[in-house]
Amino acid sequence: MKKQIRILGIDDAPFTFNDTVTTVIGVVMRGGEYIECVLRNQVTIDGCDATAVCSEMIRNSKHRKQLKAIMIDGVCLGGFNVVDITQLYESTNLPVITITRDEPDFEKIRLALQKNFSDWKQRWAVLRHGKMHVVRTAYNPLYMKCVGVSLEEAKEIINISTIRGVVPEPVRIAHLIASGITRGESYGKA
Amino acid sequence: MKKQIRILGIDDAPFTFNDTVTTVIGVVMRGGEYIECVLRNQVTIDGCDATAVCSEMIRNSKHRKQLKAIMIDGVCLGGFNVVDITQLYESTNLPVITITRDEPDFEKIRLALQKNFSDWKQRWAVLRHGKMHVVRTAYNPLYMKCVGVSLEEAKEIINISTIRGVVPEPVRIAHLIASGITRGESYGKA
Repeated sequence: MKKQIRILGIDDAPFTFNDTVTTVIGVVMRGGEYIECVLRNQVTIDGCDATAVCSEMIRNSKHRKQLKAIMIDGVCLGGFNVVDITQLYESTNLPVITITRDEPDFEKIRLALQKNFSDWKQRWAVLRHGKMHVVRTAYNPLYMKCVGVSLEEAKEIINISTIRGVVPEPVRIAHLIASGITRGESYGKA
Repeated sequence: MKKQIRILGIDDAPFTFNDTVTTVIGVVMRGGEYIECVLRNQVTIDGCDATAVCSEMIRNSKHRKQLKAIMIDGVCLGGFNVVDITQLYESTNLPVITITRDEPDFEKIRLALQKNFSDWKQRWAVLRHGKMHVVRTAYNPLYMKCVGVSLEEAKEIINISTIRGVVPEPVRIAHLIASGITRGESYGKA
């Protein structure tokens, strides 16, 4: 696999109780080294447009033809606005990899969905779709799902694009931008 | 000089005729390789707060003690809101380097100031303060001013933090973020 593989990393911005939408940031990188482009869009908090917004970001980008993979911080953008990774893969023809540093507490998530959404069964089904893999790193493990790419290839894409710690640069930098522009100074690690 | 020297790169966002303020983005990097933090603030278009805003960004940042240099895309942020680089150096005790890819047309700038600002003489004096150096690169030259650092050291800081082309990464990435979040997709090269 090329070290310079073009990856789009996506993360959402922090939001407050009063917000109805939140910013989504995309970062196009060559591997983990060189930023080529920054994209901005927005999703409805707890809405159902996350998949369409990601797909649109890619379709509208002048970098779409160079992209080889999409990497998202988790499977939700804007609260419980779940990204349907299979649908995103099918609409873009690009492998989709979701990563999280913390192991998701699915029981807690299911209860929150059940309590707050009349369409919770649908959200839950999309959220649970696909196998969760544990990727060992030199530090803590990374929790990952992938579609449109083999587990080995997904691991290689993660490996190529990680410089320090466990979070690949496209997602780490999307997080820094999303949190920085919203709060004034970025924080945390995606 | 350490390859991992912490540099804050600053650029402003594009704006339209109707805007009264525009976003300013700061990017804290280790050399030209690793992004540590993204900062966001705003300046008044054609106002007089650019120096204070830059100073405040640094003073409020948790990275201020690690910073070793400030690098700005030109000497104006938000139209003709001129950064007083000597004052910024004195208030932060950090070397300030301004860079532009195009040679400034000072005659044109002076006429624009004269036409639009009653305090044009003051803005002009601040803008013209300090010697403009031409830095040769493998590509096009870079036009640079510096204060609080020798010409040789300033060139070394630029060299350490440049990966491709002529624009150092802290400024190039600040530009990508500022233009990307404003327009939806970043463009140009700072």
